[in-house]
Amino acid sequence: MSRKVLIVGGVAGGASAAARLRRLSEEDRIIMFEKGPHVSFSNCSLPYHLSGTVDKVEKLVLMNPQKFMKQYKIEARVNNEVIKIDRENKEVHVKDVLTNEIYKESYDKLILSPGAKPVVPRIEGIENVNIFTIRNVVDIDKLNKFITDMPSKRVTVIGGGFIGVEVAENLKKASFEVTLIEAMPQILRTFDYDMVQIFHKELMDQGVNLIVGDKVKSFEKDKVVLESGKTVEAQAVVMAIGISPETSLAKEAGLELGETGAIKTDQNYKTTDEDIYAVGDAIEVYNSLTLDMTKLSLAGPAQREARAVADHINGISVNNTGFIGSSAIKVFDYNGASTGLNEGLIKALNMKIDYEVVSLVSNDKVGLMPDNSPVYFKLLFEKPTGRILGAQAIGKGNVVKRIDVIATAMAFGGTVENLKNLELCYAPPFGTAKDVVNFAGYIGCNLLRGDFKQVKVDQIRELLEENALIIDVREKFEYENGHIKGVNNIPLSEFRERINEIPKDKPVYLHCRSGQRSYNAALILKSLGYDKVYNVTGSYNALSFYEYYNDKTTGRKSILTEYNFK
Amino acid sequence: MSRKVLIVGGVAGGASAAARLRRLSEEDRIIMFEKGPHVSFSNCSLPYHLSGTVDKVEKLVLMNPQKFMKQYKIEARVNNEVIKIDRENKEVHVKDVLTNEIYKESYDKLILSPGAKPVVPRIEGIENVNIFTIRNVVDIDKLNKFITDMPSKRVTVIGGGFIGVEVAENLKKASFEVTLIEAMPQILRTFDYDMVQIFHKELMDQGVNLIVGDKVKSFEKDKVVLESGKTVEAQAVVMAIGISPETSLAKEAGLELGETGAIKTDQNYKTTDEDIYAVGDAIEVYNSLTLDMTKLSLAGPAQREARAVADHINGISVNNTGFIGSSAIKVFDYNGASTGLNEGLIKALNMKIDYEVVSLVSNDKVGLMPDNSPVYFKLLFEKPTGRILGAQAIGKGNVVKRIDVIATAMAFGGTVENLKNLELCYAPPFGTAKDVVNFAGYIGCNLLRGDFKQVKVDQIRELLEENALIIDVREKFEYENGHIKGVNNIPLSEFRERINEIPKDKPVYLHCRSGQRSYNAALILKSLGYDKVYNVTGSYNALSFYEYYNDKTTGRKSILTEYNFK
Repeated sequence: MSRKVLIVGGVAGGASAAARLRRLSEEDRIIMFEKGPHVSFSNCSLPYHLSGTVDKVEKLVLMNPQKFMKQYKIEARVNNEVIKIDRENKEVHVKDVLTNEIYKESYDKLILSPGAKPVVPRIEGIENVNIFTIRNVVDIDKLNKFITDMPSKRVTVIGGGFIGVEVAENLKKASFEVTLIEAMPQILRTFDYDMVQIFHKELMDQGVNLIVGDKVKSFEKDKVVLESGKTVEAQAVVMAIGISPETSLAKEAGLELGETGAIKTDQNYKTTDEDIYAVGDAIEVYNSLTLDMTKLSLAGPAQREARAVADHINGISVNNTGFIGSSAIKVFDYNGASTGLNEGLIKALNMKIDYEVVSLVSNDKVGLMPDNSPVYFKLLFEKPTGRILGAQAIGKGNVVKRIDVIATAMAFGGTVENLKNLELCYAPPFGTAKDVVNFAGYIGCNLLRGDFKQVKVDQIRELLEENALIIDVREKFEYENGHIKGVNNIPLSEFRERINEIPKDKPVYLHCRSGQRSYNAALILKSLGYDKVYNVTGSYNALSFYEYYNDKTTGRKSILTEYNFK
Repeated sequence: MSRKVLIVGGVAGGASAAARLRRLSEEDRIIMFEKGPHVSFSNCSLPYHLSGTVDKVEKLVLMNPQKFMKQYKIEARVNNEVIKIDRENKEVHVKDVLTNEIYKESYDKLILSPGAKPVVPRIEGIENVNIFTIRNVVDIDKLNKFITDMPSKRVTVIGGGFIGVEVAENLKKASFEVTLIEAMPQILRTFDYDMVQIFHKELMDQGVNLIVGDKVKSFEKDKVVLESGKTVEAQAVVMAIGISPETSLAKEAGLELGETGAIKTDQNYKTTDEDIYAVGDAIEVYNSLTLDMTKLSLAGPAQREARAVADHINGISVNNTGFIGSSAIKVFDYNGASTGLNEGLIKALNMKIDYEVVSLVSNDKVGLMPDNSPVYFKLLFEKPTGRILGAQAIGKGNVVKRIDVIATAMAFGGTVENLKNLELCYAPPFGTAKDVVNFAGYIGCNLLRGDFKQVKVDQIRELLEENALIIDVREKFEYENGHIKGVNNIPLSEFRERINEIPKDKPVYLHCRSGQRSYNAALILKSLGYDKVYNVTGSYNALSFYEYYNDKTTGRKSILTEYNFK
């Protein structure tokens, strides 16, 4: 018995569902409606057209209706907008966008994959600037053509999320004068404030005018006015402050929405109607770490949901393990990746969870390889269990693989103990015999055993104000190439013989370059009965990144004689 | 109460144990004996000196005795060889290699980390050639100086394991005329025969004279004579056919050796003497996949064992999860990585395990990114459970991360079902929304459900001889750019309308470029009642690699009109 399945939306979720449906049944009739002119385009690659990395705009479209029909016997109706769901009669009302004709199509099963739309807030004077948003191939083509013809090269991007940052990067690569404005104190909130400073610095170094912690107040003629009073000239403004799930169709049909405002679905991605499923950016999903529903705008999960829906329609059971959220981003020469929870998110959600942080800097590959570079790595784990809650990594090398490994361990409820023993692939061009992931496991286990205590780089300014005893245990030549102002240098190589220089009655804060030597020094002090010993996580390298961007942009006095990023 | 711990061997295992011992106890006396002049050198980086990637030989030495003493209060005695263990008196006899003086040193705990030595078989006429082996900094320096001064540029490397291949690559990069000889039909047996053809081709393409399946019979003056009768001129011969664990010290002291010939240890890496531990290449370890003891010459495991020993000596319990063996190698422009079991190993060990293979070719990153490249991926899983047994990946891009993910999943006993839902980090410069790892999970689950059957590329020649019905479902332009001779082309886009061309009464073998479209075609046939339908795993791309090297080197007739590697 064959079915008739209708799909609303022809991009990631819709196209995936259609293809899987066909593989599972040769007989079903499958119709996919897309209100725009393209199905199955590469959403995530849109910004790369601006730099010419994707040179021709047509390349962004991966499939066309003819191919869908010939290869998969799927009817892909572009320029056809589903405007109403008639649940009682199990049919949808469709508008042909080109002819304005309206027709009905019946269904046995209906899959909603309408996506999400860019949010454009009502800001005073918005008519004074050329506003663009980016959702599809038509949008990016329009923006690209406009800026190519512009007499000036000034473009402002509002919003420092994935799209905003990628658009800023690609515009800069195409030699535009780019300003990136973010209302919060940091961009890319999949990374914590301490980690993201690496990206803040990189954007600045690459010539992007980055403004964080400042909000757009109004627009004047080709000009953005910020709440601080600052103004930025811009002949084109890209609005990328966020997206909002397309729920109107579902809402009008009486399907239930969740607390997040997105469409509610059950464990099989079925809406509150027995014959209607929903997937992708329009729905909310279960986050297995926060134990709550969340909106997750990622291509991978959308495709996984789509496959699950096709399976469920065909009687194959769905294994819904929830989501943790993994993502990656390239910001000029730096790569970043993250998975699971971070400190900012835990705070924002007011989660009660007790966690500990592992922060370290390690080599991407063997230090003898000419292209080796540091990996800045941060891991959160639950106390007292050691269960991994999330991780972030940034560096010029292969940081993504480290977070992929963490995401995989998390899928199995992995702990820091598990990370110690992971057998990762090693050869000098690819890594180190002990990978940064193994190191993170070691440190996590040491922390769980109570071997040492730590403070974070964001506490150093405060400690200096309190005249705390901070000791730099790097070698003398390192100290001379840059150190925290007013901090003593007792190199690890002289540490044991100069131990009497360190008073026993006050807290001691130790740091080196990456945290490894200061950890050794901390253990020496501990063994000698010092009981208030702290290691500075991330040490001088992380501190340099942490301080740099704010030092340079606020004009405040640096606490460092020189920065050190290597 | 402080202990006196002696360590035999100052490279990966020894140095790691010493450092961890010091961190766990400030008071213990720690002495490390190394018969060579260097401690703590980068073993795995030795070959990279030959190409100048590591320019100065001194850089290979990471620490020196002075630094060990100053930073870690560890006595590192180089040029000191432990020649005897006196278990009764708990002391070792040590020979100062420079003075030939012999002295005794007592111990509370003794750790053996003597490593393994290169095997040099007695081959007729070996005195006629300049033979080199590579174990340490002195060896590589000697080889490098010799070849630099050589009047000819001809070097032969015997043995196609990691060291042999890396030496061949680095010599070639330094513009030597390099022959690499391997007695078995393939190099690098951490990869299966079908996969390794990519490396065979790459070595050939890069100008290395690769000879497989031929054994060295004898040596004449600056000449290698092979059993096939072939001769190869060589002013220098690097012998890299394998290594043998250094067990003489342990054996003479009456410590038990295992069936593999390496030192036997318990779950805490303790030998049959209560106060003597052993780690690294000299011991055998438990392979949690073969359920048997094995020799594992890898730096990561050696360091993990060393840490475990230091922990156990200090009363911290050791979590011995056994080993699966993960490794990586770079061969010119290609990267390769593997973990766990492969088909060759299962055969060699005569394992009774029932397994299935997933072979696929997928994009390393989004196809729109200019530097995208294919990942050749092979995964083995257990039947009927779906438990992952091992995986291999080769490609120009980031293949290592995929195998790291598999190794991580395997650490948790992961199944192909688990791979489907892994949330890996995605952005166009780093991967695809569905990663090759996810695809492998999908295919594995489809195979487990019995959705389709498959044949491997190594069966195609035989099928052609049997006049089997093989159908190429790629589009016409692809077929015209290279196809299996005599095989019909029914593109997927015409498949449904031309279905009557395919007889129902005989087996049908389908292939495309990567296996995805032929899978769709197989499902169409299946739905129409065809019951003997097979998909060719890896499809045309894998087949091209599979055939190429033997076609080119044996002069046999190719079964393909053109090869296709993209």
